[in-house]
Amino acid sequence: MAIKTRLTDFFGLEHPIVLAPMDPASGGELASAVSAAGALGMLGGGYANRTWFEEQSAKVSRPDVGCGFITWALANDPGLLELALQRHNKAIMLSFSDPAPYAPKVKQAGVPLICQVQTLEHAKRAIDVGADVVIAQGTEAGGHGLTARSTMPFVPAVADLVAQRASDVLVLAAGGIADGRGVAAALMLGADGALMGTRFWATQESVIHRNAKEKVVTATGDETIRTRVYDVVRKKPWPSEYTGRLMKNGFIDQWHGREDELRNLQEAELQRVETAWASGDYDTANVTVGEGIGLIHDIPTAGELVKRISAEASACLSRYAPAQQSIAA
Amino acid sequence: MAIKTRLTDFFGLEHPIVLAPMDPASGGELASAVSAAGALGMLGGGYANRTWFEEQSAKVSRPDVGCGFITWALANDPGLLELALQRHNKAIMLSFSDPAPYAPKVKQAGVPLICQVQTLEHAKRAIDVGADVVIAQGTEAGGHGLTARSTMPFVPAVADLVAQRASDVLVLAAGGIADGRGVAAALMLGADGALMGTRFWATQESVIHRNAKEKVVTATGDETIRTRVYDVVRKKPWPSEYTGRLMKNGFIDQWHGREDELRNLQEAELQRVETAWASGDYDTANVTVGEGIGLIHDIPTAGELVKRISAEASACLSRYAPAQQSIAA
Repeated sequence: MAIKTRLTDFFGLEHPIVLAPMDPASGGELASAVSAAGALGMLGGGYANRTWFEEQSAKVSRPDVGCGFITWALANDPGLLELALQRHNKAIMLSFSDPAPYAPKVKQAGVPLICQVQTLEHAKRAIDVGADVVIAQGTEAGGHGLTARSTMPFVPAVADLVAQRASDVLVLAAGGIADGRGVAAALMLGADGALMGTRFWATQESVIHRNAKEKVVTATGDETIRTRVYDVVRKKPWPSEYTGRLMKNGFIDQWHGREDELRNLQEAELQRVETAWASGDYDTANVTVGEGIGLIHDIPTAGELVKRISAEASACLSRYAPAQQSIAA
Repeated sequence: MAIKTRLTDFFGLEHPIVLAPMDPASGGELASAVSAAGALGMLGGGYANRTWFEEQSAKVSRPDVGCGFITWALANDPGLLELALQRHNKAIMLSFSDPAPYAPKVKQAGVPLICQVQTLEHAKRAIDVGADVVIAQGTEAGGHGLTARSTMPFVPAVADLVAQRASDVLVLAAGGIADGRGVAAALMLGADGALMGTRFWATQESVIHRNAKEKVVTATGDETIRTRVYDVVRKKPWPSEYTGRLMKNGFIDQWHGREDELRNLQEAELQRVETAWASGDYDTANVTVGEGIGLIHDIPTAGELVKRISAEASACLSRYAPAQQSIAA
């Protein structure tokens, strides 16, 4: 049974699921596979690195794929937004810092604008700049974000805000959603669908070393942490309020809380991280995933995964339905 | 339409909702009102203060009320557990630190044991000591807890653990649930019901100053923080991993991050907090609530609230039900 929501209507999807545009996991192959499965695939424009973008853009095999960027990082190469608007224009997603500098270009192109937010103030700003979709991201999400809010209470608060201010705007839930139970819960909270990152990170198509995926499959959700250590070692100029959620490992054990010392040894430590990345040593390289890893036990294809999640969500949504209840009673 | 779950069956309830045993908010009147409304009322045994316990125990007007304690604080007066087992024995709830020292007494009395947990390791321990109900508490919850997990990904992980190890054990979701949307979401995540604190904190019956309740009604969920400052000023010997979530105010602005200085001025600052508490000055006194405050806009009676939440949850659960979908399609 397909789940119809305002999101599936708006984008013409079969399933109310959107791939988080993870850099580098959400490459062209993954984004295409998610769209082919009837959900919304998003290319991970991330830090606006043109080499990566061109390489992965070439692997996008369908017109119904969108693209997401780290908003502040678009200043590195604003021309990539133009390319994305030409090539991967099912939707453009902006996350982290004020979307105002880039929102008008997206709107003028007639492309749906998705803004990911971490506080109610962010949500108001997203509505003000014309977002068609607001994603309420909780702190349990993998990768960057804030500690400010968790998904469970944040999504209904954003839904209420939207209902008051701009009731045509859609709401997505993000953070800690890794199976059909989470998608069904997101719908109960008033969201029109779910953005999922970590779960798609651990698929066949994601651009992540096999060793990292295998590490996640056996981990529990207790094993993640929010930290700045990889931003420090990679010299990423994140606004100070943002941290990233990752799987705990030896590198984080060594440097978390000692970021000033790490800055002094940055060159040597970066080399160590890059070597580890190349060799698949994820006790030193970063495993950028959220608390949802505790719900991940395999590495399916993205297509299999979308079907499975949607079927599980449908089963959950039927479980307490009135008809079933009267039969059970 | 009543919502039937394993929780309502186990305790003979009309609604899958449990009052968090908040000290001091969950006094005898509130706990009784919640049980009278068909949910499970729990007296807030908290820090095991005998004066408070006797005063509030005398206000419990029904036999179908339970009682909860801060586990490590029971050492202050273990005799209160005996009294609770005699008087308020619908269930005993233990939260924060190892339940093993007190679990056997509860089990021997034949009283249902509820253990609140913040990590999967805690959940395993709760199962091992014989918990009948495990509450998965996310970091968005008001009052004490950990930053370790958020409700959305933690509840299904605990549900999976229980399914593997002890499938008769019930699971409750706690943290960030303040309306029927949250209760419905909790059920989708695999919980058998929801524990709600902050929402009941803002009711007519709760033992909280009117000024504090009114402050919460106009706040958003962006306005809470996890901190130790009130534990420091009140000399509460919490295990170091625990912090409390409260509404931000002047006192927290002044002392959060300066806890060592606060220790040196503890006597004077405690007097200031106690004066503020008495006079209803909640820029200085503590407002111990979670992120769910953003979903609270009134101060109803507990009975009205239980009915409203249950009706809203039922409406949510029907929204995506197969019958409704085919009509809508």
